[in-house]
Amino acid sequence: MGNITHLSGVIAGVIGIIFTFFLTFKVLDQDQGNEEMKKISKAIQIGARAFLFSEYKILYVILGIFALILGVSNSWEMSLSFLFGATLSVLSGFFGMSIATKSNNRTAQAASSSIGAALKVAFNGGAVMGMTVSSLGLFGLGSVYFITGGNNIIMSGYAMGASFVALFARVGGGIFTKAADVGADLVGKTEAGIPEDDPRNPATIADNVGDNVGDVAGMGADLYESYVGSIFSASVLGALVFSTKGAVFPFVVTSFGLFSAIIGIILVNFFIKNNNKSLDPSKILHRGTYVSNFLQLIFVFIMSKIILDSFKPFIIISLGMLIGIIIGKVTEYYTAKEPIKKLANSSTSGAATLIINGVAIGMESTAVPVLLISFGTIISFNFLGLFGIALAAVGMLSTLGITLAIDAYGPIADNAGGIAQMAAMPSYVRERTDQLDAVGNTTAAIGKGFAIGSATLTALALFASYTQVTGISSVDLTDSYVFIGALIGAMLPFLFSSLAMNAVGDSANLMVKEVRRQFNEIPGIMENETDPDYAKCVEIATNGALRKMTLPSLLAVFSPIIVFIVLNEVAVAGMLAGTTVSGVMLAIFMSNSGGAWDNAKKYIETGTHGGKGSMAHKASVIGDTVGDPFKDTAGPAINILIKLMSIVSIVVVPILMKFFN
Amino acid sequence: MGNITHLSGVIAGVIGIIFTFFLTFKVLDQDQGNEEMKKISKAIQIGARAFLFSEYKILYVILGIFALILGVSNSWEMSLSFLFGATLSVLSGFFGMSIATKSNNRTAQAASSSIGAALKVAFNGGAVMGMTVSSLGLFGLGSVYFITGGNNIIMSGYAMGASFVALFARVGGGIFTKAADVGADLVGKTEAGIPEDDPRNPATIADNVGDNVGDVAGMGADLYESYVGSIFSASVLGALVFSTKGAVFPFVVTSFGLFSAIIGIILVNFFIKNNNKSLDPSKILHRGTYVSNFLQLIFVFIMSKIILDSFKPFIIISLGMLIGIIIGKVTEYYTAKEPIKKLANSSTSGAATLIINGVAIGMESTAVPVLLISFGTIISFNFLGLFGIALAAVGMLSTLGITLAIDAYGPIADNAGGIAQMAAMPSYVRERTDQLDAVGNTTAAIGKGFAIGSATLTALALFASYTQVTGISSVDLTDSYVFIGALIGAMLPFLFSSLAMNAVGDSANLMVKEVRRQFNEIPGIMENETDPDYAKCVEIATNGALRKMTLPSLLAVFSPIIVFIVLNEVAVAGMLAGTTVSGVMLAIFMSNSGGAWDNAKKYIETGTHGGKGSMAHKASVIGDTVGDPFKDTAGPAINILIKLMSIVSIVVVPILMKFFN
Repeated sequence: MGNITHLSGVIAGVIGIIFTFFLTFKVLDQDQGNEEMKKISKAIQIGARAFLFSEYKILYVILGIFALILGVSNSWEMSLSFLFGATLSVLSGFFGMSIATKSNNRTAQAASSSIGAALKVAFNGGAVMGMTVSSLGLFGLGSVYFITGGNNIIMSGYAMGASFVALFARVGGGIFTKAADVGADLVGKTEAGIPEDDPRNPATIADNVGDNVGDVAGMGADLYESYVGSIFSASVLGALVFSTKGAVFPFVVTSFGLFSAIIGIILVNFFIKNNNKSLDPSKILHRGTYVSNFLQLIFVFIMSKIILDSFKPFIIISLGMLIGIIIGKVTEYYTAKEPIKKLANSSTSGAATLIINGVAIGMESTAVPVLLISFGTIISFNFLGLFGIALAAVGMLSTLGITLAIDAYGPIADNAGGIAQMAAMPSYVRERTDQLDAVGNTTAAIGKGFAIGSATLTALALFASYTQVTGISSVDLTDSYVFIGALIGAMLPFLFSSLAMNAVGDSANLMVKEVRRQFNEIPGIMENETDPDYAKCVEIATNGALRKMTLPSLLAVFSPIIVFIVLNEVAVAGMLAGTTVSGVMLAIFMSNSGGAWDNAKKYIETGTHGGKGSMAHKASVIGDTVGDPFKDTAGPAINILIKLMSIVSIVVVPILMKFFN
Repeated sequence: MGNITHLSGVIAGVIGIIFTFFLTFKVLDQDQGNEEMKKISKAIQIGARAFLFSEYKILYVILGIFALILGVSNSWEMSLSFLFGATLSVLSGFFGMSIATKSNNRTAQAASSSIGAALKVAFNGGAVMGMTVSSLGLFGLGSVYFITGGNNIIMSGYAMGASFVALFARVGGGIFTKAADVGADLVGKTEAGIPEDDPRNPATIADNVGDNVGDVAGMGADLYESYVGSIFSASVLGALVFSTKGAVFPFVVTSFGLFSAIIGIILVNFFIKNNNKSLDPSKILHRGTYVSNFLQLIFVFIMSKIILDSFKPFIIISLGMLIGIIIGKVTEYYTAKEPIKKLANSSTSGAATLIINGVAIGMESTAVPVLLISFGTIISFNFLGLFGIALAAVGMLSTLGITLAIDAYGPIADNAGGIAQMAAMPSYVRERTDQLDAVGNTTAAIGKGFAIGSATLTALALFASYTQVTGISSVDLTDSYVFIGALIGAMLPFLFSSLAMNAVGDSANLMVKEVRRQFNEIPGIMENETDPDYAKCVEIATNGALRKMTLPSLLAVFSPIIVFIVLNEVAVAGMLAGTTVSGVMLAIFMSNSGGAWDNAKKYIETGTHGGKGSMAHKASVIGDTVGDPFKDTAGPAINILIKLMSIVSIVVVPILMKFFN
């Protein structure tokens, strides 16, 4: 095989990019709908781009400073690799989101002919995101691997660049989207009593922009980071067990994963075409994912034998996938099945019992995933040591192209519904997009399972990499420095979440005031005679997000540095472990509580317990609003916090050790 | 010094018990008020006793089973010590609570003459609890030490008995009190619109019973456990550094602490007598605590030199006290100062923003305590190793007699207010008890600081003891069994909290239905013509608590056993560390979020943002209700969970190792 395996990431990446362009043209080729729809879609695109450009300006100042420090203290190759990793992440987030914002009106228009047509546009729009992220991620890291001959230090720069962008994008996007959402809901829906996505609501464009910058661009950068991080750590740890063969194996696995994803995406399109009469969107999307993963397993089976002459990698990767799927099912159970009915029922005794029960559901939902991850870790570790753990994470993420497609499809369907509402399209259009949106919520649960499982495993692998680069032989909890490090580390996700939620709260407050002001001061809004000032609301959300995203992000960067200086490198290891164990719980708890409240509200809106306007519904709107920053700001950002702290420690502590020791 | 130091715990315990009787007669000697008041107080006493008796019945079945297992698998001496530790805890909880329930109507009656008189009765009632807990705890463990000549294994049985009772009492009492409270508030205050403690509310007696079984008996058992646990672990670790001298030193320190507390209690009575004109209850209580702690430091200074020939123990204990006080101040800041104003302000945009901000406040409040505890740990460890850490915890708890007095005084003042309301006493009586109640909330913050700080340090010390009894030389996080243990351990406090909160939710739901039923089916309640059926509500809260308290408690007992059997003894160590680091955060977060919502509501009730009946007030009532199970059920129970798991591991794993290895 020789050189072809070394180049596999680059080759697969290029093929993926070509397929992405093909998909993009397919999406752009669709009918954009009438002038009103174009106008709304344009407004969302302009708002989203304006936000991303402002975000990138701040981001690149910080990236520049760090690149300089890395260049001076370590090497300019590493500094370049850092900027390369960051820039490809920025590009994939920007490109993926641009296409997503162009898909929304096209989806709405397609929905007016049939649900199948709408599903196709929305899915392909999401697939552009999925393919962009995985192709560019694999291409970039593969190039660095090939050019440097597998230099771990330079590769760690790439991974750090990816993590940096991910945290800023998740936190910034998360604050934007929830400030806009909460603002739109509190004044529009609750006070003024106008429906969701009503064009009279000044925050409605900002709300739709938020879906794109948070749920699409933020999530893209997040998974780019996971994908790159897992390949990087598997490659480093693989080299220790199987030398070069082990280092390239993760690239080979993900290359085939990219092809499996492409085949899965094509199949979904084929299924839609041939099932236009009795179409079940949920079944089609699931079938696409399963076929992709099954194909990937066949590839992995063959490659395990050919490259590493062992079936152990195949068993581990199969187990990783299986665990990812089960965690997804557990997530779905807690956020969409029996517990939601009980939760909706508790809303009849008011918002307080609903909140208490929702918190309890989220906390309970940590148990099974943690036990599954523990089981997977033990098996993987017994088979192939730390390499096994990293490989299980790679297994979960290798078909990212299609899992992310299904994730990103949700916000597109959601936005399409918004446009249908604002452009006053016939009610069956909205019903169709709502149906697609609901399916998106369920299929996204699988994606979340993969994201949580892989993040935990990758954090474990990065923890191991950290001990290796710093030459620590043991991280002994009976050493009080380690225990204290763990205690401080366990605190950080709580502090981080607090900062993120405060940011949402403060920005939402400003938004609430602005929306109230517009209703009071601009005459004719409620009578549909004057357009509200949408741009002002977008501006407020943008400024709020940009002002508040830096502090929580810097927490991740500076805590390893400070803990190293005040304590030592072993305490840093303790801190990483502490942040991982408490962060994973907090992330699962917050994501699932938020998801449960969201779906309890939707369940009540189907007419249960009095439906819309009932006391139970009012309580469920409060639950949903509380859940928003839980599930879309703090919860998912914690996964990145854990990994960014690990990668910063891997990169920075060895440099500091040279100066201090 | 010789034998007197070995007997110090027993002697001080006996002196403390004598002083407690003296205090008890002083309280019982007070005027009980009119027939109506006696009747209400009697109803509370009967309800509280009935609950405790039912609780103890279940508890003793489980204690009996464990005593049998310990006797067969280890030794009958240990089994006896286990039952002795548990029984003294039961006795102190029962006796302390009985006097507290007899103090409430006496306090209300005293309040009709002056606030000073009321302060005196309430404080002495609380002091009975404080002195009972510390005297019996010290006497019991001191006796075991003396009789067995300091046998660690037999002493660990005593500590395990104390932990067992503490968890059951905290969880059972916590479920009872919050089910009753939520039930009374949701239907009585929110639906029927009648004030707090109105005699027409069927759940009002249950609510007052709850204050006693939860806040008094539950808290007593909790601190009995902390006190015993910290002395036990300091004695074991002290023996390793200073042999017998080190083993007895913690007993000597706490013996003098008991005397300091007695002097502080006498001084508070003296201050009240001499400041009757311009009385500031807060200042008097604080002054009593500070004098006690100052005296204690002088004793410790002398004893450090005489017994251990070193000032290091003195420095460590001073630092422990200082950190306890600062954590208390931080707690007070987050639950009573600036953040509360901001929180109350956020309630003007509705319950959702109030909940989001309250969660953010609680999460943020973890930072400073964790950093302080880390600082204290490092210093203590550098001075005296693990013994230093345990000693810092002993320092925080040594004056428990007075700190618990101030804690237990709050519920008495609260109950006195309830009786004043129900017995239709003049409004100035209620105003005076409210004033005392408000002071109680603030002074209790200091007590909480000591409780959290000492629990964390004791958990660290118990962790170290565990590694010693099992002969583990290192708990290395790079060993995947340890990391997985930590991951599972970090999950347990979340699962435990979920079980506890679900229990409150379910029981509260039954209570809500019963109160609604009584309003509908019993004619004349609202017109004050018929008494509601109070006993039925007490029965519902009792049954709910008893049915639901066992599962979360057994989680603590069985998880070390299962993790040992499935994984190994090092994974159990990882689990204990994981539970400690995530549990401490969750406990601080939940307690302080709950406290913040409670005080935000009280702040609004002073007239801010429209006062009672305003939109902001309605939102704040929702926040307060959510906070109830946070701060009074799950939050404080987590501290015990951590320690019970540690002590079960210490006792059970060595036995299991004999069978499995």
